[in-house]
Amino acid sequence: MDLKTLEDRLPAGTVVTDPDILAGYRQDRALDPAAGTPLALVRPQTTAEVSAVLRWASQHGVPVVPRGAGTGLSGGATAQDGALLLSTERMRAITIDPVTRTAVTQPGLLNAEVKRAAAAEGLWYPPDPSSFEICSIGGNAATNAGGLCCVKYGVTTDYILGLEVVLADGTVVRLGGPRLKDSAGLSLTKLFVGSEGTLGVITELTLRLLPAQPPQATVVASFPTVESAGAAILAVTGQLRPSMLEFMDAVAIGAVEDELRMGLDRSAAALLVARSDAPGEFAAAEAAVIEAACTEAGATEVFRTLDPEEGEAFCAARRFAIPAVERKGPLLLEDVGVPLPRLTELVTGIAEIARRRDVLVSVIAHAGDGNTHPLIVHDPNDPDETARANQAFGEIMDLAIALGGTITGEHGVGRLKKAWLPDQLGPDVMALTQRIKDALDPAGILNPGAVL
Amino acid sequence: MDLKTLEDRLPAGTVVTDPDILAGYRQDRALDPAAGTPLALVRPQTTAEVSAVLRWASQHGVPVVPRGAGTGLSGGATAQDGALLLSTERMRAITIDPVTRTAVTQPGLLNAEVKRAAAAEGLWYPPDPSSFEICSIGGNAATNAGGLCCVKYGVTTDYILGLEVVLADGTVVRLGGPRLKDSAGLSLTKLFVGSEGTLGVITELTLRLLPAQPPQATVVASFPTVESAGAAILAVTGQLRPSMLEFMDAVAIGAVEDELRMGLDRSAAALLVARSDAPGEFAAAEAAVIEAACTEAGATEVFRTLDPEEGEAFCAARRFAIPAVERKGPLLLEDVGVPLPRLTELVTGIAEIARRRDVLVSVIAHAGDGNTHPLIVHDPNDPDETARANQAFGEIMDLAIALGGTITGEHGVGRLKKAWLPDQLGPDVMALTQRIKDALDPAGILNPGAVL
Ligand SMILES: Cc1cc2nc3c(=O)[nH]c(=O)nc-3n(C[C@H](O)[C@H](O)[C@H](O)COP(=O)(O)OP(=O)(O)OC[C@H]3O[C@@H](n4cnc5c(N)ncnc54)[C@H](O)[C@@H]3O)c2cc1C
Ligand SMILES: Cc1cc2nc3c(=O)[nH]c(=O)nc-3n(C[C@H](O)[C@H](O)[C@H](O)COP(=O)(O)OP(=O)(O)OC[C@H]3O[C@@H](n4cnc5c(N)ncnc54)[C@H](O)[C@@H]3O)c2cc1C
Repeated sequence: MDLKTLEDRLPAGTVVTDPDILAGYRQDRALDPAAGTPLALVRPQTTAEVSAVLRWASQHGVPVVPRGAGTGLSGGATAQDGALLLSTERMRAITIDPVTRTAVTQPGLLNAEVKRAAAAEGLWYPPDPSSFEICSIGGNAATNAGGLCCVKYGVTTDYILGLEVVLADGTVVRLGGPRLKDSAGLSLTKLFVGSEGTLGVITELTLRLLPAQPPQATVVASFPTVESAGAAILAVTGQLRPSMLEFMDAVAIGAVEDELRMGLDRSAAALLVARSDAPGEFAAAEAAVIEAACTEAGATEVFRTLDPEEGEAFCAARRFAIPAVERKGPLLLEDVGVPLPRLTELVTGIAEIARRRDVLVSVIAHAGDGNTHPLIVHDPNDPDETARANQAFGEIMDLAIALGGTITGEHGVGRLKKAWLPDQLGPDVMALTQRIKDALDPAGILNPGAVL
Repeated sequence: MDLKTLEDRLPAGTVVTDPDILAGYRQDRALDPAAGTPLALVRPQTTAEVSAVLRWASQHGVPVVPRGAGTGLSGGATAQDGALLLSTERMRAITIDPVTRTAVTQPGLLNAEVKRAAAAEGLWYPPDPSSFEICSIGGNAATNAGGLCCVKYGVTTDYILGLEVVLADGTVVRLGGPRLKDSAGLSLTKLFVGSEGTLGVITELTLRLLPAQPPQATVVASFPTVESAGAAILAVTGQLRPSMLEFMDAVAIGAVEDELRMGLDRSAAALLVARSDAPGEFAAAEAAVIEAACTEAGATEVFRTLDPEEGEAFCAARRFAIPAVERKGPLLLEDVGVPLPRLTELVTGIAEIARRRDVLVSVIAHAGDGNTHPLIVHDPNDPDETARANQAFGEIMDLAIALGGTITGEHGVGRLKKAWLPDQLGPDVMALTQRIKDALDPAGILNPGAVL
């Protein structure tokens, strides 16, 4: 494919073909070994440039894989042979309007940068994936990212008031805007959220912000069994809405403690980290309720603090769980979710699968919304163990579906989970999805092989 | 059209052709004089029956107009010649799960009935259109209804976790479910919310519920000018998130006072009703902040109360504004919204349009989210006044678009506002909308003439 006609339409340096640079863009954090060899990397700075890229790609039938920061865990940004990798990393403008409490931002800014820009105006952008320091806001929208505070504050879609999207043929559409309510026409903004680059490229986002979050109280509790932790989770969510409610199993506790040496109880079967951001002394009051719920459910140790830094240390420990467990070996990272009352069944069922398949699985979870991340440790150089890890990966999704859950709570389907999507959605919803895909991207050039 | 084959597929009494009964179903609250003569009314009780109706309609090319409680204000449920009116009024089952804090409900239940079922379990379904005692939850989802508390708590889409929908050809799909987070596949649930019966018939909803709302503090303030009220609105929303922030102009104040005699200040140009549901004594503290903001902005009279009944009386007064102004004559009911800083411009611009067109326009508003309801009073028997009222109706939408706003904040496009939709969305978004409509309803039998 001759790239000259593409280069002619774009500022110098936008199209990159240096194989050494390309190599760094072939995979996301799913590290899919089947990643292809891309035609080129394009790094546009403006919506007009994105539109030019997609017009060219449409005309030449060249597939396009949109890419934010490449932190995705489901292979949604994995390079395909002969495809353009469209990276938004240079699209980094943002403006905050404190009066309407909105941000208008390009997609390439990192989530943490959006949070900081909002904070500079005394405002707060809530969605907080553990990867917030390294993932892009456009990628967050494309995957409908969750995070730690979404048990109380919802997920990315709840904060998106408007989008600018470039469609497969290069058409630029503006959807929604800085209005808290808008019923004019179909809910197209929401359709593009979570579409994982298969329907269009997000080039601008209008985000809803909140007043700064009040200081949080934090409770950390150790449990002798997964069941007692599960009981505490239901007791807490039944009484109040924590601003965070996270779970770590024994493997994760040990792995984090190995690295951070912060005095976590290595003998515990499970650890919960819960927070309250209720105003004023209500945070302390809610923390007391959480403590009581944990104690009643059988916690062996409960620690409660109003000190923000101390609390943040425990959250950081929880966020550090994935890298910590990763020290034990490469991970297959799961993301299954179930309705809350089935959470204990899911976690114990996963342990049973791990035993049966003889692999190490550590479970961490956004427990308050039933979303777990089983981390399947395996040695990619051991074909037998890898096969067993892959079997466990599939069986965990089967289990989640059987419990009325989902194969992905927040990471998306990408390429890694695509084979299981029909099991969850069924043939009619798959057909409906395909009809929408065909209507919006008839030639199928947008992120082919992802989701569908 | 022979209805025998339809009747054969449904329980006796489901298909109604009695013209006297049909007459009561030809219009919604938009009272469109151009309403057609329907073929029949069908009142299914189950999803399977809805599916049978749509299969039959597809096979025979008969259009179907879905209908909840018929309180719509944009003519979305207006009867079409030769169409089936599909009323959900007999689909009334509901179950509440206090553990997952969700409700699973059929669409025909009234919003108030959903609220009551939730309250019986100590839970709360927030969305509260003023019509909550008379509109259906299915209609709320189909229009993405707003209400008084959405300035803090969001609109209907924010509370819909899952839907069951019957597609044009009778296929039944289940989307989402009782999971707080679910990234599996496209955001189809959200696409059907607000689709006004043009993409499918909603036959079941899974709703997210919250813990019961704390008692609210209420502030009522009178202002000498619209501008001073506008300044107070910005001052309030800049400092906190009220659980309600409503606006009434002089005409509405007078009309409500004529009926209710509750001592509203008839000399005021504007009245604000604001509430706080912050926990414990924070409600009183926030009410004090609101009072100070109003006083500083120039309020002539401010009343503050912690008494829930007293507060509720003022909310009821605000909710009563539409019927009260209606006593002056039939209304053309507008629903335009703008970004909050443009609200005063919108309200003063509307007054200017009213003067120019020589019609009486009263403005009430969900002020906290910039969504206004200009009520255009006119005598339908006076063709000249009616023409001027219609001109004002269109000019108000033009003004909202010019101010970066929307032609409909919450009532939907229906048939009444369809002519203005392209002005707001532009040709590319209209084409995108049509592509989705064609993909999901290729024969165009679902609510033809609405939205598109
Ligand atoms: C340590 C770690 C912790 C994590 N924790 C969380 C967590 O708590 N919650 C969570 O939800 N995720 C988490 N993730 C996953 C990941 O960070 C999120 O999915 C994130 O939203 C991806 O953003 P990105 O910019 O890296 O996107 P990419 O990985 O670059 O892309 C993700 C998908 O979005 C598409 N895409 C990206 N940008 C655009 C655009 N502008 N327009 C259209 N499509 C686009 C891509 O094609 C791809 O399909 C974690 C990842 C890591 C490595
Ligand atoms: C006095 C008054 C005050 C109001 N205040 C508000 C307010 O504050 N906020 C607000 O948002 N609205 C308000 N409304 C408007 C109206 O009540 C809402 O639009 C409501 O959501 C309509 O519900 P319904 O059951 O009456 O629907 P209908 O009027 O029967 O139908 C509305 C639309 O939804 C479609 N529809 C209905 N049910 C289904 C279904 N099950 N599946 C698919 N499509 C369906 C119809 O085809 C139509 O297009 C008010 C109306 C009145 C009369």
